[in-house]
Amino acid sequence: MSKRIKSDNSLLERKQIKVELLTFMYGTLLVRLTKDIKDINELNTKIELIGYDIGKRLVDDLIDDFQRGLDPSDQNKLMEKLILQLSQYYLGIIGNYSQVGENEFHLKFTQNPISLYVELPESLEGLCYSNIICGIMRGMLEISGFEVKCELVKDKMKGDDINDMKIVLVKYIEERFIDDEE
Amino acid sequence: MSKRIKSDNSLLERKQIKVELLTFMYGTLLVRLTKDIKDINELNTKIELIGYDIGKRLVDDLIDDFQRGLDPSDQNKLMEKLILQLSQYYLGIIGNYSQVGENEFHLKFTQNPISLYVELPESLEGLCYSNIICGIMRGMLEISGFEVKCELVKDKMKGDDINDMKIVLVKYIEERFIDDEE
Repeated sequence: MSKRIKSDNSLLERKQIKVELLTFMYGTLLVRLTKDIKDINELNTKIELIGYDIGKRLVDDLIDDFQRGLDPSDQNKLMEKLILQLSQYYLGIIGNYSQVGENEFHLKFTQNPISLYVELPESLEGLCYSNIICGIMRGMLEISGFEVKCELVKDKMKGDDINDMKIVLVKYIEERFIDDEE
Repeated sequence: MSKRIKSDNSLLERKQIKVELLTFMYGTLLVRLTKDIKDINELNTKIELIGYDIGKRLVDDLIDDFQRGLDPSDQNKLMEKLILQLSQYYLGIIGNYSQVGENEFHLKFTQNPISLYVELPESLEGLCYSNIICGIMRGMLEISGFEVKCELVKDKMKGDDINDMKIVLVKYIEERFIDDEE
């Protein structure tokens, strides 16, 4: 099951790095992107897509572990578990989860790893800096069997008192789920 | 001393994220760079410079803690401590340290966080993918009081059996050091 991990990297697989390194790496990436893409809407879309691609690659094998023991027919419970666990495990985000109506889920959190020390210049006022987090979450959930839309409806970088990620379930991709029996 | 850290982020400061997220973020950045910079040498230089900028921002306040209790006149001991501690703490690299002659230091390591799962296409044969690590180390050491040159003289991505970072001391920037007495 762990083909992806070369034996040489097995230790590293469990290891973690300082969040600042990611923050600065993302900042650098974003500076490059703003040079290439002048339209803010296009830029926001691109950032989300980059996150989506990363999210899809990020989860991979581990998703079976996350889903083991859960009842695939209980989509709400699955969503809750996945959103909470994926965000904490992969993004270092510890959030409060809630469900609004049938298909809308929220993750509220105060600490956004990607925006540490970041202050946006006025020229980038419309930039959704944290769209990459939304993209990563969308990619991770898609790999996990849930096609979703994901958006930061409250953003501390934009003056809100909290970050609030809205996740709307579009489609349940049933065949992704594994049998709980080995 | 910790002005840089907003109170809201104090917890996050101690927190860590999965190394894969960094790996993929760097991969994305590199893809962007290869689109803009076609000359491989220029690309390698740029990657190192990006690392250097990140390295300088990465260390900041903590450097005082790393240097506390060390004798500033014992440069060799300082270099050893800094290279081992900075690489482990900020990059997640656990390496073997050695000194060759007066000004040459080596850090050998098997696990390179930045190159997890990466295979370079033939068109990028001359790319020094891990130059960013060298740049980060150079930036971190400069902030710590040592102007150095830094190069990966052995690179597992290029078929070597180990990664070997050669660090050559250019200049000791004495005034950077703090008094050990509070």
